[in-house]
Amino acid sequence: MTILLYDLVPTDTQRPFSPHCWKAKMALAHKGLDYRAVPTRFTDVPKVEGGVSKTVPVIRDGERVVADSFAIALYLEDAYPERPTLFGGDGGKAMARFIERWSQTQLHPFLGSAALMEIYRLQDEENGVYFRESREERYGKTLEAVGAERDTHLAAFRKKLVPLRSMLEYQPFIGGERPLFADYIVFGALQWVRVTSTYEFLQSGDPILPWFERCLDLHGGVGRATPAAA
Amino acid sequence: MTILLYDLVPTDTQRPFSPHCWKAKMALAHKGLDYRAVPTRFTDVPKVEGGVSKTVPVIRDGERVVADSFAIALYLEDAYPERPTLFGGDGGKAMARFIERWSQTQLHPFLGSAALMEIYRLQDEENGVYFRESREERYGKTLEAVGAERDTHLAAFRKKLVPLRSMLEYQPFIGGERPLFADYIVFGALQWVRVTSTYEFLQSGDPILPWFERCLDLHGGVGRATPAAA
Repeated sequence: MTILLYDLVPTDTQRPFSPHCWKAKMALAHKGLDYRAVPTRFTDVPKVEGGVSKTVPVIRDGERVVADSFAIALYLEDAYPERPTLFGGDGGKAMARFIERWSQTQLHPFLGSAALMEIYRLQDEENGVYFRESREERYGKTLEAVGAERDTHLAAFRKKLVPLRSMLEYQPFIGGERPLFADYIVFGALQWVRVTSTYEFLQSGDPILPWFERCLDLHGGVGRATPAAA
Repeated sequence: MTILLYDLVPTDTQRPFSPHCWKAKMALAHKGLDYRAVPTRFTDVPKVEGGVSKTVPVIRDGERVVADSFAIALYLEDAYPERPTLFGGDGGKAMARFIERWSQTQLHPFLGSAALMEIYRLQDEENGVYFRESREERYGKTLEAVGAERDTHLAAFRKKLVPLRSMLEYQPFIGGERPLFADYIVFGALQWVRVTSTYEFLQSGDPILPWFERCLDLHGGVGRATPAAA
Protein backbone atom coordinates (compact mmCIF):
# COMPACT_ATOMS: atom_id res chain seq x y z
CA MET A 1 0.00 0.00 0.00
CA THR A 2 1.23 3.45 -0.89
CA ILE A 3 2.51 5.46 2.06
CA LEU A 4 1.36 9.10 2.27
CA LEU A 5 4.00 11.71 3.08
CA TYR A 6 2.66 15.12 4.04
CA ASP A 7 5.32 17.29 2.49
CA LEU A 8 5.73 21.02 3.04
CA VAL A 9 5.47 23.10 -0.14
CA PRO A 10 5.30 26.80 -0.98
CA THR A 11 2.95 28.17 -3.69
CA ASP A 12 4.75 25.99 -6.23
CA THR A 13 3.80 22.45 -5.20
CA GLN A 14 6.79 21.12 -7.16
CA ARG A 15 9.25 22.73 -4.75
CA PRO A 16 9.05 20.86 -1.44
CA PHE A 17 11.55 22.56 0.85
CA SER A 18 11.30 21.40 4.47
CA PRO A 19 14.60 19.90 5.68
CA HIS A 20 12.70 17.50 7.89
CA CYS A 21 10.39 16.38 5.08
CA TRP A 22 13.47 15.78 2.92
CA LYS A 23 14.88 13.54 5.62
CA ALA A 24 11.67 11.49 5.64
CA LYS A 25 11.48 11.37 1.83
CA MET A 26 15.07 10.13 1.56
CA ALA A 27 14.31 7.50 4.23
CA LEU A 28 11.29 6.26 2.24
CA ALA A 29 13.35 6.18 -0.97
CA HIS A 30 16.22 4.38 0.83
CA LYS A 31 13.76 1.69 1.92
CA GLY A 32 12.44 1.46 -1.65
CA LEU A 33 8.87 2.01 -0.45
CA ASP A 34 6.00 3.30 -2.58
CA TYR A 35 4.97 6.68 -1.31
CA ARG A 36 2.96 9.62 -2.48
CA ALA A 37 3.81 13.14 -1.38
CA VAL A 38 0.78 15.16 -0.27
CA PRO A 39 1.62 18.82 -0.92
CA THR A 40 1.07 20.65 2.36
CA ARG A 41 1.33 24.38 2.99
CA PHE A 42 2.17 25.88 6.39
CA THR A 43 -1.49 26.76 6.99
CA ASP A 44 -2.54 23.18 6.11
CA VAL A 45 -0.38 21.60 8.82
CA PRO A 46 -3.00 21.87 11.62
CA LYS A 47 -5.43 19.88 9.43
CA VAL A 48 -3.01 17.06 8.61
CA GLU A 49 -4.44 13.75 9.83
CA GLY A 50 -6.79 15.48 12.24
CA GLY A 51 -4.09 17.73 13.67
CA VAL A 52 -1.84 14.94 14.91
CA SER A 53 1.28 17.15 14.90
CA LYS A 54 2.26 20.80 14.93
CA THR A 55 4.82 20.09 12.21
CA VAL A 56 5.39 17.98 9.12
CA PRO A 57 6.59 15.48 8.02
CA VAL A 58 3.76 13.19 8.95
CA ILE A 59 3.34 9.84 7.21
CA ARG A 60 0.34 7.52 6.98
CA ASP A 61 1.23 3.89 6.37
CA GLY A 62 -2.06 1.98 6.33
CA GLU A 63 -3.48 2.43 9.82
CA ARG A 64 -0.30 3.92 11.26
CA VAL A 65 0.30 7.67 11.41
CA VAL A 66 3.78 8.81 12.45
CA ALA A 67 5.04 12.38 12.90
CA ASP A 68 8.65 13.69 13.19
CA SER A 69 11.38 12.71 10.75
CA PHE A 70 13.50 10.80 13.24
CA ALA A 71 10.46 8.88 14.54
CA ILE A 72 9.50 8.13 10.94
CA ALA A 73 12.95 6.69 10.21
CA LEU A 74 12.80 4.56 13.37
CA TYR A 75 9.29 3.40 12.41
CA LEU A 76 10.35 2.45 8.86
CA GLU A 77 13.39 0.56 10.18
CA ASP A 78 11.15 -1.39 12.52
CA ALA A 79 8.28 -1.98 10.07
CA TYR A 80 10.46 -2.93 7.09
CA PRO A 81 13.45 -4.79 8.54
CA GLU A 82 13.96 -6.84 5.37
CA ARG A 83 14.64 -3.69 3.32
CA PRO A 84 17.95 -1.77 3.32
CA THR A 85 18.80 -0.57 6.81
CA LEU A 86 18.60 3.13 7.68
CA PHE A 87 20.77 2.83 10.78
CA GLY A 88 23.07 -0.18 10.48
CA GLY A 89 22.22 -1.49 13.93
CA ASP A 90 21.45 -0.19 17.41
CA GLY A 91 24.69 1.77 17.71
CA GLY A 92 23.83 3.60 14.51
CA LYS A 93 20.35 4.42 15.84
CA ALA A 94 21.85 5.98 18.95
CA MET A 95 24.64 7.87 17.20
CA ALA A 96 22.27 9.17 14.52
CA ARG A 97 20.63 11.08 17.37
CA PHE A 98 23.92 12.79 18.13
CA ILE A 99 24.29 13.72 14.46
CA GLU A 100 20.69 14.95 14.38
CA ARG A 101 21.38 17.20 17.38
CA TRP A 102 24.62 18.39 15.76
CA SER A 103 22.81 19.27 12.53
CA GLN A 104 19.89 20.89 14.31
CA THR A 105 21.96 23.00 16.69
CA GLN A 106 25.02 23.78 14.54
CA LEU A 107 23.68 23.98 10.96
CA HIS A 108 19.96 24.80 11.07
CA PRO A 109 20.15 28.22 12.75
CA PHE A 110 22.39 29.63 10.03
CA LEU A 111 20.82 27.79 7.07
CA GLY A 112 17.31 28.77 8.09
CA SER A 113 18.26 32.41 8.40
CA ALA A 114 20.30 32.34 5.16
CA ALA A 115 17.26 31.22 3.13
CA LEU A 116 14.68 33.09 5.18
CA MET A 117 13.76 35.85 2.73
CA GLU A 118 13.70 33.51 -0.26
CA ILE A 119 11.45 31.07 1.58
CA TYR A 120 9.17 33.96 2.47
CA ARG A 121 8.92 35.08 -1.16
CA LEU A 122 7.94 31.56 -2.26
CA GLN A 123 4.77 31.68 -0.13
CA ASP A 124 1.32 32.87 -1.16
CA GLU A 125 -0.23 35.72 0.78
CA GLU A 126 -1.83 33.72 3.59
CA ASN A 127 1.23 31.55 4.13
CA GLY A 128 3.50 34.57 3.88
CA VAL A 129 1.63 36.22 6.74
CA TYR A 130 1.93 33.03 8.82
CA PHE A 131 5.63 32.68 8.02
CA ARG A 132 6.47 36.28 8.82
CA GLU A 133 4.57 36.29 12.12
CA SER A 134 5.88 32.95 13.38
CA ARG A 135 9.51 33.57 12.34
CA GLU A 136 9.65 37.15 13.56
CA GLU A 137 8.41 35.93 16.93
CA ARG A 138 11.03 33.17 16.95
CA TYR A 139 13.93 35.46 16.02
CA GLY A 140 12.71 38.60 17.77
CA LYS A 141 13.58 40.54 14.59
CA THR A 142 12.09 41.25 11.19
CA LEU A 143 12.69 38.71 8.43
CA GLU A 144 14.65 41.36 6.59
CA ALA A 145 16.94 41.96 9.57
CA VAL A 146 17.66 38.24 10.01
CA GLY A 147 18.28 37.75 6.29
CA ALA A 148 20.64 40.73 6.14
CA GLU A 149 22.94 39.10 8.72
CA ARG A 150 23.76 36.01 6.70
CA ASP A 151 27.03 37.27 5.23
CA THR A 152 28.24 38.16 8.72
CA HIS A 153 27.73 34.60 9.91
CA LEU A 154 28.87 32.76 6.78
CA ALA A 155 32.51 32.20 7.77
CA ALA A 156 31.50 30.87 11.20
CA PHE A 157 28.98 28.54 9.57
CA ARG A 158 31.58 27.08 7.22
CA LYS A 159 33.80 26.43 10.24
CA LYS A 160 30.99 24.53 11.92
CA LEU A 161 31.11 22.01 9.08
CA VAL A 162 34.69 21.00 10.02
CA PRO A 163 33.68 17.69 11.65
CA LEU A 164 31.81 16.58 8.51
CA ARG A 165 34.60 17.77 6.24
CA SER A 166 37.19 15.97 8.35
CA MET A 167 35.13 12.75 8.44
CA LEU A 168 34.94 12.74 4.64
CA GLU A 169 38.71 12.16 4.59
CA TYR A 170 37.97 8.72 6.05
CA GLN A 171 34.81 7.54 4.29
CA PRO A 172 32.39 8.65 1.54
CA PHE A 173 29.25 8.83 3.71
CA ILE A 174 28.41 9.44 7.37
CA GLY A 175 27.04 5.89 7.17
CA GLY A 176 30.44 4.62 5.97
CA GLU A 177 30.75 3.11 2.49
CA ARG A 178 27.02 3.63 1.93
CA PRO A 179 24.58 6.30 3.08
CA LEU A 180 22.39 5.87 6.14
CA PHE A 181 19.71 8.05 7.72
CA ALA A 182 22.46 10.14 9.35
CA ASP A 183 23.47 11.30 5.86
CA TYR A 184 19.88 12.29 5.10
CA ILE A 185 19.74 14.33 8.29
CA VAL A 186 22.53 16.60 7.06
CA PHE A 187 21.46 16.34 3.41
CA GLY A 188 18.00 17.66 4.35
CA ALA A 189 19.53 20.73 5.96
CA LEU A 190 21.54 21.60 2.84
CA GLN A 191 18.73 20.68 0.42
CA TRP A 192 16.47 23.15 2.26
CA VAL A 193 18.69 25.98 1.04
CA ARG A 194 19.48 24.46 -2.37
CA VAL A 195 15.82 24.40 -3.44
CA THR A 196 14.86 27.81 -2.04
CA SER A 197 17.89 30.05 -2.41
CA THR A 198 20.81 30.81 -4.72
CA TYR A 199 22.99 31.68 -1.75
CA GLU A 200 26.43 30.05 -1.95
CA PHE A 201 26.74 28.77 1.56
CA LEU A 202 29.52 26.33 0.56
CA GLN A 203 32.70 27.49 -1.09
CA SER A 204 33.67 25.88 -4.38
CA GLY A 205 36.22 23.17 -3.70
CA ASP A 206 34.66 22.28 -0.34
CA PRO A 207 34.82 18.45 -0.03
CA ILE A 208 31.27 18.60 1.31
CA LEU A 209 30.02 19.48 -2.18
CA PRO A 210 30.91 16.11 -3.79
CA TRP A 211 29.27 14.34 -0.83
CA PHE A 212 26.14 16.47 -1.35
CA GLU A 213 26.17 15.64 -5.06
CA ARG A 214 26.44 11.93 -4.20
CA CYS A 215 23.38 12.32 -1.99
CA LEU A 216 21.46 14.11 -4.77
CA ASP A 217 22.16 11.11 -7.03
CA LEU A 218 20.83 8.50 -4.59
CA HIS A 219 17.69 6.45 -5.15
CA GLY A 220 17.12 7.49 -8.74
CA GLY A 221 18.01 11.10 -8.04
CA VAL A 222 15.02 11.86 -5.81
CA GLY A 223 16.84 14.85 -4.34
CA ARG A 224 17.94 16.19 -7.70
CA ALA A 225 14.41 15.88 -9.12
CA THR A 226 13.60 19.13 -7.34
CA PRO A 227 15.80 21.63 -9.16
CA ALA A 228 18.02 24.11 -7.39
CA ALA A 229 16.55 27.58 -6.97
CA ALA A 230 17.46 29.86 -9.86
CA MET B 1 46.82 -13.79 27.44
CA THR B 2 47.21 -10.37 28.95
CA ILE B 3 47.10 -7.52 26.45
CA LEU B 4 49.77 -4.83 26.82
CA LEU B 5 48.64 -1.20 26.59
CA TYR B 6 51.42 1.34 26.19
CA ASP B 7 49.96 4.17 28.21
CA LEU B 8 51.30 7.72 28.32
CA VAL B 9 52.32 8.87 31.80
CA PRO B 10 54.11 11.88 33.29
CA THR B 11 56.70 11.55 36.07
CA ASP B 12 54.01 10.00 38.29
CA THR B 13 53.32 6.67 36.61
CA GLN B 14 49.97 6.51 38.42
CA ARG B 15 48.59 9.44 36.44
CA PRO B 16 48.06 8.29 32.83
CA PHE B 17 46.70 11.30 30.98
CA SER B 18 46.57 10.82 27.21
CA PRO B 19 42.99 11.20 25.89
CA HIS B 20 43.69 8.61 23.22
CA CYS B 21 45.14 6.11 25.69
CA TRP B 22 42.04 6.60 27.84
CA LYS B 23 39.85 5.73 24.85
CA ALA B 24 41.80 2.51 24.35
CA LYS B 25 41.77 1.66 28.05
CA MET B 26 37.99 2.14 28.25
CA ALA B 27 37.59 -0.04 25.15
CA LEU B 28 39.65 -2.83 26.76
CA ALA B 29 37.65 -2.53 29.98
CA HIS B 30 34.35 -2.52 28.02
CA LYS B 31 35.36 -5.80 26.37
CA GLY B 32 36.29 -7.19 29.80
CA LEU B 33 39.76 -8.12 28.58
CA ASP B 34 42.81 -8.64 30.78
CA TYR B 35 45.30 -5.93 30.08
CA ARG B 36 48.38 -4.48 31.65
CA ALA B 37 49.26 -0.82 31.23
CA VAL B 38 52.92 -0.21 30.36
CA PRO B 39 53.80 3.25 31.68
CA THR B 40 55.26 5.18 28.74
CA ARG B 41 56.75 8.66 28.79
CA PHE B 42 56.81 10.95 25.75
CA THR B 43 60.46 10.18 25.16
CA ASP B 44 59.78 6.42 25.36
CA VAL B 45 57.24 6.46 22.49
CA PRO B 46 59.81 6.01 19.67
CA LYS B 47 61.00 2.81 21.40
CA VAL B 48 57.54 1.27 21.81
CA GLU B 49 57.37 -2.08 19.97
CA GLY B 50 60.36 -1.20 17.80
CA GLY B 51 59.03 2.24 16.89
CA VAL B 52 55.80 1.04 15.29
CA SER B 53 54.03 4.37 15.81
CA LYS B 54 54.78 8.02 16.46
CA THR B 55 52.07 8.09 19.12
CA VAL B 56 50.49 5.97 21.80
CA PRO B 57 48.26 4.11 22.50
CA VAL B 58 49.76 0.99 21.07
CA ILE B 59 48.59 -2.43 22.18
CA ARG B 60 50.17 -5.85 21.87
CA ASP B 61 47.72 -8.74 21.88
CA GLY B 62 49.79 -11.91 21.45
CA GLU B 63 51.41 -11.55 18.06
CA ARG B 64 49.34 -8.55 17.01
CA VAL B 65 50.47 -4.97 17.53
CA VAL B 66 47.92 -2.23 16.85
CA ALA B 67 48.42 1.56 17.08
CA ASP B 68 45.81 4.37 17.17
CA SER B 69 42.83 4.33 19.52
CA PHE B 70 40.18 4.04 16.81
CA ALA B 71 42.08 1.23 15.07
CA ILE B 72 42.46 -0.49 18.45
CA ALA B 73 38.70 -0.33 19.06
CA LEU B 74 38.01 -1.72 15.57
CA TYR B 75 40.57 -4.48 16.18
CA LEU B 76 39.04 -5.44 19.55
CA GLU B 77 35.54 -5.49 18.05
CA ASP B 78 36.74 -7.81 15.32
CA ALA B 79 38.94 -10.03 17.48
CA TYR B 80 36.45 -10.40 20.34
CA PRO B 81 33.00 -10.44 18.73
CA GLU B 82 31.48 -12.54 21.52
CA ARG B 83 32.22 -9.83 24.10
CA PRO B 84 30.12 -6.65 24.56
CA THR B 85 30.08 -4.65 21.37
CA LEU B 86 31.96 -1.33 21.16
CA PHE B 87 30.02 -0.07 18.14
CA GLY B 88 26.58 -1.73 18.01
CA GLY B 89 26.90 -2.65 14.34
CA ASP B 90 28.33 -1.25 11.12
CA GLY B 91 26.33 1.98 11.30
CA GLY B 92 27.78 2.63 14.73
CA LYS B 93 31.31 2.02 13.43
CA ALA B 94 30.81 4.59 10.70
CA MET B 95 29.10 7.20 12.88
CA ALA B 96 31.70 6.79 15.64
CA ARG B 97 34.14 8.22 13.09
CA PHE B 98 32.01 11.35 12.78
CA ILE B 99 31.96 11.67 16.58
CA GLU B 100 35.72 11.12 16.72
CA ARG B 101 36.22 13.91 14.19
CA TRP B 102 33.80 16.14 16.13
CA SER B 103 35.67 15.54 19.39
CA GLN B 104 39.09 15.94 17.79
CA THR B 105 38.30 19.16 15.91
CA GLN B 106 35.83 20.84 18.29
CA LEU B 107 36.96 19.76 21.78
CA HIS B 108 40.64 18.84 21.66
CA PRO B 109 42.11 22.21 20.63
CA PHE B 110 40.61 23.97 23.65
CA LEU B 111 41.06 21.15 26.16
CA GLY B 112 44.67 20.61 25.16
CA SER B 113 45.48 24.27 25.56
CA ALA B 114 43.50 24.56 28.82
CA ALA B 115 45.61 21.85 30.49
CA LEU B 116 48.85 22.67 28.69
CA MET B 117 50.79 24.27 31.53
CA GLU B 118 49.66 21.67 34.06
CA ILE B 119 50.66 18.83 31.73
CA TYR B 120 54.04 20.49 31.29
CA ARG B 121 54.59 20.75 35.03
CA LEU B 122 53.85 17.03 35.47
CA GLN B 123 56.82 16.05 33.26
CA ASP B 124 60.39 15.35 34.34
CA GLU B 125 63.13 17.50 32.87
CA GLU B 126 63.78 15.52 29.69
CA ASN B 127 60.08 15.09 28.90
CA GLY B 128 59.39 18.70 29.76
CA VAL B 129 61.94 19.80 27.16
CA TYR B 130 60.34 17.52 24.56
CA PHE B 131 56.82 18.73 25.43
CA ARG B 132 57.75 22.40 25.32
CA GLU B 133 59.58 22.12 22.00
CA SER B 134 56.95 20.01 20.23
CA ARG B 135 53.96 22.03 21.52
CA GLU B 136 55.51 25.42 20.94
CA GLU B 137 56.21 24.38 17.36
CA ARG B 138 52.62 23.16 16.96
CA TYR B 139 51.04 26.30 18.41
CA GLY B 140 53.62 28.79 17.18
CA LYS B 141 53.57 30.34 20.68
CA THR B 142 55.09 29.70 24.10
CA LEU B 143 53.28 27.26 26.38
CA GLU B 144 52.66 30.16 28.74
CA ALA B 145 51.00 32.22 25.99
CA VAL B 146 48.71 29.37 24.96
CA GLY B 147 47.76 28.58 28.54
CA ALA B 148 47.02 32.22 29.31
CA GLU B 149 44.35 32.30 26.60
CA ARG B 150 42.12 29.60 28.05
CA ASP B 151 39.72 31.92 29.87
CA THR B 152 39.20 33.87 26.65
CA HIS B 153 38.09 30.71 24.83
CA LEU B 154 36.11 29.08 27.64
CA ALA B 155 32.65 30.39 26.70
CA ALA B 156 33.10 29.38 23.05
CA PHE B 157 34.22 25.91 24.16
CA ARG B 158 31.16 25.41 26.34
CA LYS B 159 29.01 26.35 23.33
CA LYS B 160 30.74 23.72 21.23
CA LEU B 161 29.38 21.09 23.60
CA VAL B 162 25.78 21.98 22.66
CA PRO B 163 25.25 18.91 20.42
CA LEU B 164 26.28 16.55 23.24
CA ARG B 165 24.23 18.45 25.80
CA SER B 166 21.20 18.40 23.53
CA MET B 167 21.59 14.69 22.79
CA LEU B 168 21.60 13.93 26.51
CA GLU B 169 17.98 15.11 26.61
CA TYR B 170 17.15 12.01 24.54
CA GLN B 171 19.36 9.25 25.93
CA PRO B 172 21.89 8.65 28.73
CA PHE B 173 24.86 7.76 26.50
CA ILE B 174 26.04 8.57 22.97
CA GLY B 175 25.65 4.81 22.49
CA GLY B 176 22.00 5.01 23.59
CA GLU B 177 20.91 3.22 26.77
CA ARG B 178 24.44 1.89 27.23
CA PRO B 179 27.87 3.33 26.48
CA LEU B 180 29.75 2.50 23.31
CA PHE B 181 33.19 3.49 22.04
CA ALA B 182 31.74 6.84 20.91
CA ASP B 183 31.22 7.69 24.58
CA TYR B 184 34.83 6.81 25.36
CA ILE B 185 36.02 9.10 22.56
CA VAL B 186 34.49 12.12 24.28
CA PHE B 187 35.19 10.78 27.78
CA GLY B 188 38.89 10.53 26.94
CA ALA B 189 38.97 14.20 25.97
CA LEU B 190 37.45 15.32 29.28
CA GLN B 191 39.43 12.83 31.37
CA TRP B 192 42.65 14.29 29.90
CA VAL B 193 41.89 17.55 31.69
CA ARG B 194 40.36 15.98 34.81
CA VAL B 195 43.54 14.09 35.70
CA THR B 196 46.00 16.89 34.89
CA SER B 197 44.28 20.15 35.76
CA THR B 198 41.94 21.72 38.28
CA TYR B 199 40.51 24.00 35.60
CA GLU B 200 36.70 24.08 35.66
CA PHE B 201 35.98 23.71 31.98
CA LEU B 202 32.37 22.65 32.68
CA GLN B 203 29.98 24.83 34.62
CA SER B 204 28.26 23.28 37.63
CA GLY B 205 24.79 22.18 36.58
CA ASP B 206 25.92 21.28 33.07
CA PRO B 207 24.08 18.03 32.09
CA ILE B 208 27.37 16.81 30.64
CA LEU B 209 28.72 16.41 34.20
CA PRO B 210 26.35 13.58 35.21
CA TRP B 211 27.14 11.81 31.91
CA PHE B 212 30.87 12.17 32.68
CA GLU B 213 30.30 10.81 36.19
CA ARG B 214 28.43 7.82 34.70
CA CYS B 215 31.43 7.18 32.46
CA LEU B 216 33.81 7.41 35.45
CA ASP B 217 31.76 4.70 37.16
CA LEU B 218 31.87 2.24 34.26
CA HIS B 219 33.71 -1.09 34.33
CA GLY B 220 34.54 -1.04 38.01
CA GLY B 221 35.39 2.64 37.99
CA VAL B 222 38.52 2.34 35.82
CA GLY B 223 38.27 6.06 34.95
CA ARG B 224 37.78 7.11 38.57
CA ALA B 225 40.73 5.01 39.76
CA THR B 226 42.98 7.80 38.52
CA PRO B 227 42.08 10.66 40.85
CA ALA B 228 41.29 14.13 39.63
CA ALA B 229 44.18 16.59 39.74
CA ALA B 230 44.28 18.49 43.03
